[in-house]
Amino acid sequence: MGAITDVPGVKVGQAEDAVALTGVTVVIFPDGAVAGVDVRGASPGTRETDLLDPANTVQKINAIALCGGSAFGLAAATGVVRYLREQGQGFETPYGKVPIVPAAVIYDLGVGQPDVYPDDIMGYQASRLAGSSVTEGNAGAGAGASIGKVLGSSGSMKSGIGTSSATLNLAVPGLPPARFTVGVLVVTNAFGDVYLGEQVLAGARLSVGGFVNTSYLLREGVSQPPATGTNTTLAVIATDAPLTKAGTTRLATMAHDGLARAIRPVHTMFDGDTIFAVSTGGLPASSDPDALLVTALGSLAADLLVEAVQRSVTTATTAGGIPALATV
Amino acid sequence: MGAITDVPGVKVGQAEDAVALTGVTVVIFPDGAVAGVDVRGASPGTRETDLLDPANTVQKINAIALCGGSAFGLAAATGVVRYLREQGQGFETPYGKVPIVPAAVIYDLGVGQPDVYPDDIMGYQASRLAGSSVTEGNAGAGAGASIGKVLGSSGSMKSGIGTSSATLNLAVPGLPPARFTVGVLVVTNAFGDVYLGEQVLAGARLSVGGFVNTSYLLREGVSQPPATGTNTTLAVIATDAPLTKAGTTRLATMAHDGLARAIRPVHTMFDGDTIFAVSTGGLPASSDPDALLVTALGSLAADLLVEAVQRSVTTATTAGGIPALATV
Repeated sequence: MGAITDVPGVKVGQAEDAVALTGVTVVIFPDGAVAGVDVRGASPGTRETDLLDPANTVQKINAIALCGGSAFGLAAATGVVRYLREQGQGFETPYGKVPIVPAAVIYDLGVGQPDVYPDDIMGYQASRLAGSSVTEGNAGAGAGASIGKVLGSSGSMKSGIGTSSATLNLAVPGLPPARFTVGVLVVTNAFGDVYLGEQVLAGARLSVGGFVNTSYLLREGVSQPPATGTNTTLAVIATDAPLTKAGTTRLATMAHDGLARAIRPVHTMFDGDTIFAVSTGGLPASSDPDALLVTALGSLAADLLVEAVQRSVTTATTAGGIPALATV
Repeated sequence: MGAITDVPGVKVGQAEDAVALTGVTVVIFPDGAVAGVDVRGASPGTRETDLLDPANTVQKINAIALCGGSAFGLAAATGVVRYLREQGQGFETPYGKVPIVPAAVIYDLGVGQPDVYPDDIMGYQASRLAGSSVTEGNAGAGAGASIGKVLGSSGSMKSGIGTSSATLNLAVPGLPPARFTVGVLVVTNAFGDVYLGEQVLAGARLSVGGFVNTSYLLREGVSQPPATGTNTTLAVIATDAPLTKAGTTRLATMAHDGLARAIRPVHTMFDGDTIFAVSTGGLPASSDPDALLVTALGSLAADLLVEAVQRSVTTATTAGGIPALATV
């Protein structure tokens, strides 16, 4: 299918408000998943990321929520927690299971209605719809996503959800050969432009003519300072390869290199770029991260993320007056 | 000139052992420099990086040492400190000035002689030679640098020092127009391949035929696990734009995106990739990082680092049986 749900143990549910242009994308792990995170942008909005530190106690999470609505949208994670509690999922404690749902948000208040954002009900709804198919483009957290905002929203373009997957072979002598799946899902909502190789595929546009080229404009002198904290690209990397929390953390770090190749500039003061990485394969036999496995997974995840970012703009549709690539 | 020394207040000195194939590159700031760091690889070797945390006391450093010799090579920083003490430079304390010299190392023990590494004397020598010219290729810490080591040293290629620079215009209404210089210096010693756009420029080679393509090989199954901690790419980003420690830290983070574009894979379990960023322009009037300035500098630094990494392989020469791009 070429989706993150190709990874065993991964389901995706999405809900959105197609008028207000905001939404939530939930990635659910019915059997739990070892997880790590790398918060790389300078303007992040997150919850439950501290427990992902490899030094901290909880080993497995139950879901990840990617939300529109800036800090307001973190409310949607409450609905995911509520749904998972009903399903009997969560971290075992003496007084009941506590669902572990790390979340991160994008800023989409400038697209559609600024005073409507994902809430408990939308988070619950997205969780209830979780299955093995993934709608790309303007679905879920992609509903209000856009890119190329160096000149403000007037020159921006519509983006959304993208996903991709591939398999990885491990053939080290002395070890049994293994084959793992890696899948990624991204909601691209970047300050910068999206690239295909060395060319701008979609991004900030002049009122007449083509792309601005944000990197070039920044170098030659922007005439109007953009508003800080009004972007952010979020991704989830999933694999069935067995990894420690430290291994998933490194996987998240290496995956950011895919954003670096596909979005320029990225990880700016205006973005809160955050990548979660999870393993549904359970903890490995050894507590040491397998250096070769983690490196191979990270290399592939970066490649897949380049593809998924490109798909997030090619599958997006015009909305809220923000044109999609398909229509310009 | 297109070198990091185009930035006012930046000098570079290098010393190397052309037989043992190891060396040290020192970047000296005679008037001090505000500095930050982003340690991104999984196998770093560093000193004096903790004080670069924006929350910590020291605001300005006196030099940065990039050293061959793995952890042994950190000894070269001692010679840099000794030289700077003689010059009367350092952080003022009640009992004399203490030179602040963050340092990081590459693993080059597999090229040339494994039991010879940069020491106090070599660090002092490099500092004494500091000036406004920068020799690229097999100079300084580049003496024993190589890339493309997924198949071990047999299929690897020679790399070394690369440098580049450019100017940045700031033209925000209400602020006086400004023009700053950004310069970068890199010693490329990567596990992965070096790219020109989407093509491998130099990297791991088959005994007969062309490049292996490390990313592809990792995906299809490596037949022999590489040795961990035997690589690392180091860089220094310098600018005369005024930045806080937090601003230089973000600049270092964004510059890593240049490595992500030019080296694939990078930031692996086998690399200790570390980037220092410095401002010789003094602390800005406001303690808040200027979001637009930092973003523009980071975007340009990433572009310059792509160029410098490519130069680090095009200027390298064959040594220790490791062929350079110019000869294959």
